[in-house]
Amino acid sequence: MKISKLVGERLKEVPAGVTAKSHSLLLRAGYIKQVANGIYSLYPAAQRVILKIENIIRQEMNGVDGQEVHLPVVMPREMWDKSGRYASIGSEMLRFKDRNDRDMLIGMTHEEAAVHLCQNTIKSYDQLPFMIYQIQTKFRDEARPRAGLLRVREFTMKDGYSFHTSHEDLNEYYDRVYGAYNRVFKRIGMKNVIAIKSDNGMMGGDASDEFQLLVEAGEDNIVICQHCGYKANMEIATAKKDEVSFTDEALNEIYTKDAKTIDELATLLKKDKKQFIKAVCYAISGEKDKVVVAFVRGDKEVNEAKLKKHLGVEDIAVTDISETGLVKGNIGCVGLEITNIKVFDKSLEGLTGMICGANKEEYHLGGVNLERDVKPSEYVDIIKVNEGDLCHECGAPIIIKKGIEVGNIFKLDTKYTKTMDMTISMPDGSKLHPIMGCYGIGIGRCLAGIVEESADEKGIVWPMAVAPWQIYLCPLRNDDAEIEKKADELYEKLSKNFEVLYDDRKTSAGMKLTDSELMGIPVRVVISPRSLSANQAEITIRESGEKIMVELDKLEETLSNLTKLN
Amino acid sequence: MKISKLVGERLKEVPAGVTAKSHSLLLRAGYIKQVANGIYSLYPAAQRVILKIENIIRQEMNGVDGQEVHLPVVMPREMWDKSGRYASIGSEMLRFKDRNDRDMLIGMTHEEAAVHLCQNTIKSYDQLPFMIYQIQTKFRDEARPRAGLLRVREFTMKDGYSFHTSHEDLNEYYDRVYGAYNRVFKRIGMKNVIAIKSDNGMMGGDASDEFQLLVEAGEDNIVICQHCGYKANMEIATAKKDEVSFTDEALNEIYTKDAKTIDELATLLKKDKKQFIKAVCYAISGEKDKVVVAFVRGDKEVNEAKLKKHLGVEDIAVTDISETGLVKGNIGCVGLEITNIKVFDKSLEGLTGMICGANKEEYHLGGVNLERDVKPSEYVDIIKVNEGDLCHECGAPIIIKKGIEVGNIFKLDTKYTKTMDMTISMPDGSKLHPIMGCYGIGIGRCLAGIVEESADEKGIVWPMAVAPWQIYLCPLRNDDAEIEKKADELYEKLSKNFEVLYDDRKTSAGMKLTDSELMGIPVRVVISPRSLSANQAEITIRESGEKIMVELDKLEETLSNLTKLN
Repeated sequence: MKISKLVGERLKEVPAGVTAKSHSLLLRAGYIKQVANGIYSLYPAAQRVILKIENIIRQEMNGVDGQEVHLPVVMPREMWDKSGRYASIGSEMLRFKDRNDRDMLIGMTHEEAAVHLCQNTIKSYDQLPFMIYQIQTKFRDEARPRAGLLRVREFTMKDGYSFHTSHEDLNEYYDRVYGAYNRVFKRIGMKNVIAIKSDNGMMGGDASDEFQLLVEAGEDNIVICQHCGYKANMEIATAKKDEVSFTDEALNEIYTKDAKTIDELATLLKKDKKQFIKAVCYAISGEKDKVVVAFVRGDKEVNEAKLKKHLGVEDIAVTDISETGLVKGNIGCVGLEITNIKVFDKSLEGLTGMICGANKEEYHLGGVNLERDVKPSEYVDIIKVNEGDLCHECGAPIIIKKGIEVGNIFKLDTKYTKTMDMTISMPDGSKLHPIMGCYGIGIGRCLAGIVEESADEKGIVWPMAVAPWQIYLCPLRNDDAEIEKKADELYEKLSKNFEVLYDDRKTSAGMKLTDSELMGIPVRVVISPRSLSANQAEITIRESGEKIMVELDKLEETLSNLTKLN
Repeated sequence: MKISKLVGERLKEVPAGVTAKSHSLLLRAGYIKQVANGIYSLYPAAQRVILKIENIIRQEMNGVDGQEVHLPVVMPREMWDKSGRYASIGSEMLRFKDRNDRDMLIGMTHEEAAVHLCQNTIKSYDQLPFMIYQIQTKFRDEARPRAGLLRVREFTMKDGYSFHTSHEDLNEYYDRVYGAYNRVFKRIGMKNVIAIKSDNGMMGGDASDEFQLLVEAGEDNIVICQHCGYKANMEIATAKKDEVSFTDEALNEIYTKDAKTIDELATLLKKDKKQFIKAVCYAISGEKDKVVVAFVRGDKEVNEAKLKKHLGVEDIAVTDISETGLVKGNIGCVGLEITNIKVFDKSLEGLTGMICGANKEEYHLGGVNLERDVKPSEYVDIIKVNEGDLCHECGAPIIIKKGIEVGNIFKLDTKYTKTMDMTISMPDGSKLHPIMGCYGIGIGRCLAGIVEESADEKGIVWPMAVAPWQIYLCPLRNDDAEIEKKADELYEKLSKNFEVLYDDRKTSAGMKLTDSELMGIPVRVVISPRSLSANQAEITIRESGEKIMVELDKLEETLSNLTKLN
């Protein structure tokens, strides 16, 4: 490819409002262009990376006996009514009426369609297990698109669905896919991907793993124990309970004036934050009149993902309580009748001598004994883990890292085969709802993730396996006719065996070298009047910056070695 | 692939209501499954064919310097307001509001997005010409989906867009793409594809060619002159005017009782149908109060595509005129004031002595002299060509064939670059709106077209280049352990160099052989106790039915030759 004809332009400036590294570099190096909020076009350079990532995914999916299919993007409502998800998924799913006034939707995941394809087609136990997968562009009306390709509304993903006669069989196959996923991420050049246990969210089912690329730009918080290897998404992570106890005493009112926050109260009363009971109020989206008050120990934060899961709701938000009769800053769990839902965290279980709001202005209550004064029907884990908390498995201090979720795999159980009534015949003549697994990889997010992880201050650094071109051929001074002729010949010759991006512009050496680095092509070959007079070319490795002078007649051999994949 | 694990089932019966050959065979042989009206899932066998077709298209598009990109499926209204197509395209385009109440749409074609991608990126004349293309699943809310994959609502296509500084440059590039298209259709195994001139429809621009696969199931009518090579879609085809003349005379009322149709009138009055003026009434969709009366010679039919184009409207339909004051069966062009729009066909130009309705029950008018009695402001070509009409270029009789439109290419002029104001700098410093071409191929329709063209009474016949598998390995009697062992070994061995579908089922020889034919795999290798005792395998060529006995140690060599692409 000659760069003079390549569609996509290099920019000197970081576009305004762009903060994520991959977003900035992909815009600046001519890989992507924004069309609308969370919707991007891909320039040819990016599409070349995408095709390479897709090919590697295909190979690995075929390697675990996956069969590639095509499921529709647009589906009728009836299919999703059966699974219950037409109602349960919120406004991120695009619904519309077709010209005949039928309810349709744009699928952002395809469990229903996968079951539809196999239902009445796969009839007998001996046809299982099998896995079907597809690579497809989908749309999800994401509320908060951000950071370029890291969180978008339109996205291309690989999604796969497996079917099994037993949990043992699913477990065995799930482990094979787990292995294939690790190979995919390794082959596309990611260095720090870890698999962690996660929340099943809207997928249903009983177990799942997320593949997280650990980079600073990640928006997920990953809890890691470096001692025993415990890893989990913050959304579900738990730490060892650090036991505390305070002297049991009678309830007593404490005048606390305008101290409202735990920090203010701890300072005023000269007590450890752990001795307080913190109250946080939430509204449930779509249920206007309900207020949820979550009670946690004063030194803890509410984990909203856990709280949502406990409540079985899609979305909650910290709410303004002015019209509820609750006294802001003085809410307490003793004698509180006004709220619809109260949730108590496990950190409070069995505690005595605690301090909470008195449900009236300027007062708190001391000597609270949960079992004596409140009697919660249950204690639920709804708190966030903090860096330094102790691992609940081994007791070592845990750390927290940022991650980008690049893939996920789920054990779905029979949620979809039961609701859609897909059955197979078993050897004894009985009917069984197959057990399913499902497996996703975000392809555009992988591309952006690679940039986040590998880029340096000069620009993108593509791993060889997914680089849009392997070689950047860069003649300096090709306003010089002789140099240009040599470069043209070299381009012709190298193009037979390599993917070459040829910088044929009659522009400054500085601009060419800078662009080659910005675009991240792994190997740069420079020829100049000086190198040619010595019958040599200068090779620079993008990742390491290493430079090698090579005789022209050894050039192809050297490039063969440099472009070889491990 | 072992057929016992292949997702997709062979059916004995043609599903009810299915008439098109490709629809029936693709359902029966386990290639597709319907999800909703005009929406299909593809089983693995079909997806394998699709990937092969896509690869051939990619190679040929890259061969004419195409650069693959990805344009969004979902686009904001603003982009399409600029081109005017948000308003001009009807209900086949899916429009919706996103969660922030913005108007969005699902693109069924991407001229606007292509211009958006290149605008402000391509700035100078010397970056042209270039072509970008993509392969993408799109949705069009087609009013009348039919015949399986031949006319669908969700479809995968290759769409490409080129940009030029002059019409000469576009013409030259257009011819290169024309050549590449011919190579694509040839390489995917189509035998009878012709390129014909066609109507630009909603694309705008000034010239276009359709690539039509000539098969009986086609829904397009193609007018062909086998003498001079004239070829055109019925929608725009013209024939030589066959001159007629009748004696000029004074207007005279004729009592025609209940004769209404041209046939009835010709019989009653014993006149040639050519002497009548036929009137056909249309309503314009969306314009309730307008009636269009089209006048054509009695032996001709109205070509609605031409009429629509002349009127500049999206859709028309023959209308019930009961409330318009027009007299059904007796409408005439003399003194007719009631209608909003009258259109006269060229076949009527200058005629005298004609007969038309008298605009009152039971009467017609004779002696009509168009120029004396009607004085139309213009005569327009709005008639259908009939088989046997004379070629307007050479005068030989034309024939009409059925075709499936598998591709189309358009010269778009500057419609999109002007309305979206994309400009480039010319050498003299002036600004230019680039001239565009656009290029489409329907990939699913190609798959179905191949089936229509090549299938025989036994089933599908895949051309080698796009066959889902090259070889169908078919052991007879693999309930016999020895045969099964041999077959397993052979499968292992052949899979190293060939794409093999292995019929490992313990089922009857008849079912296996029938399935291999139904599925259309090009080469079948049968081993049986008898062939093995002679150390041989039996090869059958699906297309010709030719059978060859081959020594087992020559099998791979023979298969190499048989699977080679020309």
